[in-house]
Amino acid sequence: MELLEEKILKDGVIKSGNVLKVDSFLNHQIDVPFIAELGKEFKRQFADRPINKILTIEASGIGIASIAAMFFEVPVVFAKKSSGSNMDKDVYFTQIYSSTHSKNNDVVVSKKYLNKNDHVLIIDDFLANGCALEGLMDIVRQAGGIVEGIGVAIEKGFQGGGDKLRQMGVNLHSLAIIDKMDAVSGTIQFRKEN
Amino acid sequence: MELLEEKILKDGVIKSGNVLKVDSFLNHQIDVPFIAELGKEFKRQFADRPINKILTIEASGIGIASIAAMFFEVPVVFAKKSSGSNMDKDVYFTQIYSSTHSKNNDVVVSKKYLNKNDHVLIIDDFLANGCALEGLMDIVRQAGGIVEGIGVAIEKGFQGGGDKLRQMGVNLHSLAIIDKMDAVSGTIQFRKEN
Repeated sequence: MELLEEKILKDGVIKSGNVLKVDSFLNHQIDVPFIAELGKEFKRQFADRPINKILTIEASGIGIASIAAMFFEVPVVFAKKSSGSNMDKDVYFTQIYSSTHSKNNDVVVSKKYLNKNDHVLIIDDFLANGCALEGLMDIVRQAGGIVEGIGVAIEKGFQGGGDKLRQMGVNLHSLAIIDKMDAVSGTIQFRKEN
Repeated sequence: MELLEEKILKDGVIKSGNVLKVDSFLNHQIDVPFIAELGKEFKRQFADRPINKILTIEASGIGIASIAAMFFEVPVVFAKKSSGSNMDKDVYFTQIYSSTHSKNNDVVVSKKYLNKNDHVLIIDDFLANGCALEGLMDIVRQAGGIVEGIGVAIEKGFQGGGDKLRQMGVNLHSLAIIDKMDAVSGTIQFRKEN
């Protein structure tokens, strides 16, 4: 998606360790009018799927998922990273490795909000090694629901998680795929769309 | 707001310890088409204010703030609860006591995304003792910005945080104020609107 690629080139900052900071518009400050354009694009790409629910994970997935859900007119469920004292005990549970924080997070979704009748679109802001998305897919599998697709804003193609999911047959759309980026020169190479 | 009061009566669950669970539509599953109605109401209530940014706090504030921001056509900034390894070091910092988890959370906002030119609407899902909102106001104060108002979905009026803010002259609008609730009988008494 050209609009997103331009935004990344304009406002993204490459840091060492393959970190791309896009917190000016995606995951600390949320440029809502801009993210709405991404939401519309998800709706266009998954228009043929009978989606009745969007699943994401706290915290940075919630904004883009909620905005996208405005165009799908469906509820969002966000997976929670630890079982708070107010949390139901009757949950689907999985573990997701966070490379940002170098630890496994316990992730839960209440059984009340996901079941075998659900046709789920999973949305997240980033895709790198794919651990978060595999965890969310595992939760939909436990619920007996159907993953109709996965929509991601920015995929770090060079980390391989996206291609692994595609090889599994997952209906994955990433709005921008970075095949190469270099912190020293500040250059980013996007994958050409088919 | 009658629509919200009816939803709370229909879908809210009162638990002991003054806990109101509304995770079927507000803070685990987000009923996006419904929350959009709350967003429109915030826009109506703060229409006379020159708001250019919405500030909230992760995680459960992000959904309602992002959806409301669609009607204000402004960006959202969400305060983060701990300084992750990808986080800027140049931040506004405050501490917020969480009664849910009985601990102080370190809360930060990057200085890049809030400054003295900002006219801020603070939005959150819940208001109880007011600690979270006071922390967010402190961050806006550090930035030299102006708090144009605070919009809250559900205020637990009996915990006093909202009235304390009103006495301070804060332009606070809560869409539903609960003056009394009882876990045994399952009854909820809302404050009458003026």
